[in-house]
Amino acid sequence: MDALLRGFEDNEFKHRLKRAQDRMQAANLAALLLTTEPEIRYFTGFLTRFWESPTRPWFLLVPQSGDPVAVIPAIGEALMRRCSIVDIRTWPSPAPDDGVSLLADTIRQIAKSGAIAVPDGPETHLRMPLASFHLLEKAIAPAVLVSDQGIMRQLRLVKSAAEIAKIEQACTIAGRAFGRVYEIARAAQPLDQIFRDFQILCLQEGADHVSYLAGGAGPNGYSDVISPATSRPLADGDVLMLDTGLVWDGYFCDFDRNYTVGHARPQMADAHRILIEATQAGLEAAKPGVTAAELKRVMAGHIVEAGGIVSNGRFGHGLGMQLTEWPSLIEHDETILEENMVLTLEPGIETSGGQMLVHEENIVVTARGARPLTDFAKPDLPVV
Amino acid sequence: MDALLRGFEDNEFKHRLKRAQDRMQAANLAALLLTTEPEIRYFTGFLTRFWESPTRPWFLLVPQSGDPVAVIPAIGEALMRRCSIVDIRTWPSPAPDDGVSLLADTIRQIAKSGAIAVPDGPETHLRMPLASFHLLEKAIAPAVLVSDQGIMRQLRLVKSAAEIAKIEQACTIAGRAFGRVYEIARAAQPLDQIFRDFQILCLQEGADHVSYLAGGAGPNGYSDVISPATSRPLADGDVLMLDTGLVWDGYFCDFDRNYTVGHARPQMADAHRILIEATQAGLEAAKPGVTAAELKRVMAGHIVEAGGIVSNGRFGHGLGMQLTEWPSLIEHDETILEENMVLTLEPGIETSGGQMLVHEENIVVTARGARPLTDFAKPDLPVV
Repeated sequence: MDALLRGFEDNEFKHRLKRAQDRMQAANLAALLLTTEPEIRYFTGFLTRFWESPTRPWFLLVPQSGDPVAVIPAIGEALMRRCSIVDIRTWPSPAPDDGVSLLADTIRQIAKSGAIAVPDGPETHLRMPLASFHLLEKAIAPAVLVSDQGIMRQLRLVKSAAEIAKIEQACTIAGRAFGRVYEIARAAQPLDQIFRDFQILCLQEGADHVSYLAGGAGPNGYSDVISPATSRPLADGDVLMLDTGLVWDGYFCDFDRNYTVGHARPQMADAHRILIEATQAGLEAAKPGVTAAELKRVMAGHIVEAGGIVSNGRFGHGLGMQLTEWPSLIEHDETILEENMVLTLEPGIETSGGQMLVHEENIVVTARGARPLTDFAKPDLPVV
Repeated sequence: MDALLRGFEDNEFKHRLKRAQDRMQAANLAALLLTTEPEIRYFTGFLTRFWESPTRPWFLLVPQSGDPVAVIPAIGEALMRRCSIVDIRTWPSPAPDDGVSLLADTIRQIAKSGAIAVPDGPETHLRMPLASFHLLEKAIAPAVLVSDQGIMRQLRLVKSAAEIAKIEQACTIAGRAFGRVYEIARAAQPLDQIFRDFQILCLQEGADHVSYLAGGAGPNGYSDVISPATSRPLADGDVLMLDTGLVWDGYFCDFDRNYTVGHARPQMADAHRILIEATQAGLEAAKPGVTAAELKRVMAGHIVEAGGIVSNGRFGHGLGMQLTEWPSLIEHDETILEENMVLTLEPGIETSGGQMLVHEENIVVTARGARPLTDFAKPDLPVV
């Protein structure tokens, strides 16, 4: 099923490390201290669903020069040894100290009295107990924990060719599943059963797992895009939306499709057509040099021009190792688009009765403009 | 498919709130500040897969008296309004300040100069950007952020009858899927295809989603229990293990099953039998008053007595809204078992060549001993 190779060539990690170390040198940072799944995977390739367990903290130290050092629970050693990293230090977690002493020793050894940078900006968090973090701060003195000044964000904003290929593979798999929704959705079918069946379609088409599925259904669309499915049966004339973030080899797609049950109500058909055109306008506008904010303005502008009411919220975002990443297509995000950024375009339109329709596609920014990673939907609402 | 009711009666949340507030009063804490999915869901019932997106912080304040206050991104308002909470304050996230000012205002209003407690112990983390947390610390002075002294842990360690019913439902669904593994696993079938097919079985049997699946296969078992599946085909005589954490209405099961392909190698059959007996010994020993550490000693002791080599790592853990929760069945966890704690029993045995077998079941502690939530496996390794 997968012609595409899993994992990465070693060069990928060397390149990522060099990009990081160049920035750390410029910012005079002795090391990066990373604690979350995507941050640690970014430099090592360590891929496991075991992060679902909140029990154990995991650490990666990326020094300003030299190789990264993993400080991890012993349960992860066998898998980490198969990754692109040599220096692996383990402790038998869970345990009372749970890695703090080993991590502090390692920091003192590789960073001495320098500044150890932790990602602390938007869309990040520290995945370790706060009490352990405070103990660590004391234990590493005179070294100090400081902000990474957005370095991890800068690195992950721009994807490699191999990363883009994996995201595109996830998109292709989801596209095939969306193409089969007519098999599982019809009037009288409960929405929660459709959610189960759609996840089955994603797996049948080659997803490793389906980490995200949201959606909604109703005669005027849906009130939000984050609620779990209820057992309400689909009715003739309903619009059904399914929005999935499925994963292939650790990379996400994130897009949706709208369908209408039995027949399309004219207001819904119009709203859908406007969204598709707005997305197309976004695709055409997405070029290096354009800002995230401008891209939202283009799509929102199209909706207004076509006589629609723009719905609240962002109109897309970055995509990669996580379902959503920087930047946000919102008024105040002035991130300048660069080649090899992967984005979702996600315009929303108000319908009536506090309801809305949302449409979403995935693209990659290239030197000459944007390239679709999804097979863009047609203006006509598909009937199931 | 579900005879069991989804969601909770309002009394459930009132009872949880009272338990929390009694403890907060005893500890002289003005409020709890909660930021993670299970913590916020515990007091509100707010259930969505949208937490997969790391973009936005979410906050819940639980005051020492009175009702909780949600301070959340506007995208969550429609769903939160259907939950067991009245005071909901929103901001249009993502945004530069991203909730910090609104949260600080709310804290000053409800807690004044008191101590605002944040879960900071083992198995917790703070799900908000660290830079925002530091801004918040300054903004709420003279109120201060302090440790919750393990209150959230104490609350969540003991489950309600409704919670136990949901976990049992998840166990029943997974049990049916495990009963059908003979349909998908046979010699020459690649392990990654079996992983996909097993997730399909779980969905067909009624899982809302399959948040965790790990496993392994080989003639002597497997080297770890966290690696993703490779495309290596199953061979005659392999032991195949599948370990799943599927979710029903926001609650997990977490157990595994071992199978042998074609025929059972005698060493593997013996190891499996010893594990099943060790699990049975754990079930019999799990009573109010026994410690987590003692429960591990019982199971490990059985393995040694039977001539086996105990594998490293913990021998089980708590289970509920998360795949793994407190306590840990390890030497130094002196948590005393109480009625209505839900646990996994997960003994492991070394086989040869650095490989192992692991077996896992789920139980609930009752006044008279433990009750199985899973249909305990038989000593004979099932053949596929």
